Amino acid sequence: MATVRPLADDEAAPEARAVFDDIRTARGTDYVNDFWRALAHDPALLRATWERLKSVMGPGGIDPLTKEMVYLAVSVANGCSYCVHSHTAAARGKGMTDAQHGELMAVIGMAMQTNGLVTALGIPPDEVFRA
Amino acid sequence: MATVRPLADDEAAPEARAVFDDIRTARGTDYVNDFWRALAHDPALLRATWERLKSVMGPGGIDPLTKEMVYLAVSVANGCSYCVHSHTAAARGKGMTDAQHGELMAVIGMAMQTNGLVTALGIPPDEVFRA
Amino acid sequence: MATVRPLADDEAAPEARAVFDDIRTARGTDYVNDFWRALAHDPALLRATWERLKSVMGPGGIDPLTKEMVYLAVSVANGCSYCVHSHTAAARGKGMTDAQHGELMAVIGMAMQTNGLVTALGIPPDEVFRA
Amino acid sequence: MATVRPLADDEAAPEARAVFDDIRTARGTDYVNDFWRALAHDPALLRATWERLKSVMGPGGIDPLTKEMVYLAVSVANGCSYCVHSHTAAARGKGMTDAQHGELMAVIGMAMQTNGLVTALGIPPDEVFRA
Amino acid sequence: MATVRPLADDEAAPEARAVFDDIRTARGTDYVNDFWRALAHDPALLRATWERLKSVMGPGGIDPLTKEMVYLAVSVANGCSYCVHSHTAAARGKGMTDAQHGELMAVIGMAMQTNGLVTALGIPPDEVFRA
Amino acid sequence: MATVRPLADDEAAPEARAVFDDIRTARGTDYVNDFWRALAHDPALLRATWERLKSVMGPGGIDPLTKEMVYLAVSVANGCSYCVHSHTAAARGKGMTDAQHGELMAVIGMAMQTNGLVTALGIPPDEVFRA
Repeated sequence: MATVRPLADDEAAPEARAVFDDIRTARGTDYVNDFWRALAHDPALLRATWERLKSVMGPGGIDPLTKEMVYLAVSVANGCSYCVHSHTAAARGKGMTDAQHGELMAVIGMAMQTNGLVTALGIPPDEVFRA
Repeated sequence: MATVRPLADDEAAPEARAVFDDIRTARGTDYVNDFWRALAHDPALLRATWERLKSVMGPGGIDPLTKEMVYLAVSVANGCSYCVHSHTAAARGKGMTDAQHGELMAVIGMAMQTNGLVTALGIPPDEVFRA
Repeated sequence: MATVRPLADDEAAPEARAVFDDIRTARGTDYVNDFWRALAHDPALLRATWERLKSVMGPGGIDPLTKEMVYLAVSVANGCSYCVHSHTAAARGKGMTDAQHGELMAVIGMAMQTNGLVTALGIPPDEVFRA
Repeated sequence: MATVRPLADDEAAPEARAVFDDIRTARGTDYVNDFWRALAHDPALLRATWERLKSVMGPGGIDPLTKEMVYLAVSVANGCSYCVHSHTAAARGKGMTDAQHGELMAVIGMAMQTNGLVTALGIPPDEVFRA
Repeated sequence: MATVRPLADDEAAPEARAVFDDIRTARGTDYVNDFWRALAHDPALLRATWERLKSVMGPGGIDPLTKEMVYLAVSVANGCSYCVHSHTAAARGKGMTDAQHGELMAVIGMAMQTNGLVTALGIPPDEVFRA
Repeated sequence: MATVRPLADDEAAPEARAVFDDIRTARGTDYVNDFWRALAHDPALLRATWERLKSVMGPGGIDPLTKEMVYLAVSVANGCSYCVHSHTAAARGKGMTDAQHGELMAVIGMAMQTNGLVTALGIPPDEVFRA
């Protein structure tokens, strides 16, 4: 189900189709996934989201695969199933091996576990952690 | 505040002190942070948590700094303030620069944003994401 | 799937059917959605939940559409897909336009983003925010 | 800090003071904690919340300590520090031992961990779990 | 505590101070809160976050107070204490009365409650909610 | 959908099949659910997760049904649908009656509600809750 119907190319406004084209060019594939097609009901929101994503996930001081793993980790903690699927696929596309995927699962699971323990114990941060 | 008082070395049971010593050796510092001192009320839980953390965060196919960034990302999404502080400190200890920290913030913020958009739009994963 | 089967009218106890009838009258429709039908396994819980919802979402100092948008925002942050779908439908039923829906998406996404940034930065509230 | 100032007895409206008195009687103590004092700015919300809490946490088919443990578990997962502290105190008041507290921590931590793993793996529920 | 120290005006880079000035102009006050001062370590992130916030929270088809209430609701569900304090203050600055605040609390509490019930019951969205 | 395909017995490595066999013995059933089959891509993670779960959920100072209810409560708050389904089934298997299920729903819903109210009110823990 969905709260808005993903738009096919010929249903989208010209401003939205221009973003679709930019996504295609940036990714080197004709496929535009449904997140962008659902956002296309509001071309300005689509444009702002895509431009920011392109900038944030673009070249910088953290390698692209690490960024995808971080993105996936946030998506897991937030329980966003679509995001988990799309960013797992993206991480694999950027070279994540099966062994790395297993190891990433272990790190995420460990973080979830100690997040729960820390919150349950209610301990304030140690003074040594101060910036 | 806290729901259990972190234990000083001379308040902890021998089984807990042995874990403290292992933490000191593994980290090359005499400092044992309050998370472990709070867990020391239950030496078996302290031991199991530490052993698993040491194994999960130890050498493998993902570099140590990436693991810390993933851990931090989960902690942010779960709203665990102590964990955010301790894993930011750990990431800096493993070489995270100011520029990388800023970039990590941007990735986490972007993931939070699109997690919200995706969930609000209610879209099911595209068939191409299937494993 | 579901952990309890939504009950049809003729499967529900008289106390539950009375709540179904009240829902029908309040909403001016014969349709009773599955949330209420699932709750009908425990007529007292069904009754308490419905009575409280009717009171909270009823006339007051905040207009009905704003209340639905707030409800939807909470549901998104909690990752409740059913709630996102039902309260998006309710907001549309109370007059939310496509443009307002897009704008609401943008506000929710922005809030998610800065929630993440603030938590990652670990900053305590400014003194000026004190009540 | 707080977004509303907890009200002392002589600052609260008569309808709010009546709830304070009911809390005192039900709990057998003169102490009214700040959650109720903060809610007292809206006596109707204070009344509705207290009445529902009293009913839900009152005698039934689940023993009082189990209910407190469940309440605490939800509060941990939601990252509500105040709630973690108040319901840990309540659970201890209802007989939770140190050993049970440690065991409860372990269960909560385990649940957090497998919640993360399951969400990261994206697996749909097995057919055998159908109600 | 904090993971980065909020920067005073004379510690911030010129690009960051320019954003501080823009915030002052837009809000008609000399006060710049610590969220922006903490972001100032990364002037590009500061700029991008502020520009997007200004656009999203600016004039549109949803009134400013409703937007603040939605922002606050998301912040509550995400457990972001700083955000709860800052957006409660902002909502009051935009005219939220004590009565509206109480009513907003009730709506948020109700949404949290039914989010939990719905997730616990595991019910898929009714077909009538389809977009 | 899923990010990794659950493995059938003859697709799993010997180390993973050994865990499947241990699960079968411990539970007295031939059925191994998909969570374990998905984890089987990483036999070490499968083994560590199962061993810890068996230990944590095993005999101790909290009865098995209470542990399942706590596990379910965390899963609801984290929005993990698979976990909600599997632990509801497990709780029923350990004797949870329909009446207890309804009562558990009420406790979880109440906790969600007051978690939201407390966070929205921003109140720090009372001094009397100090450990």
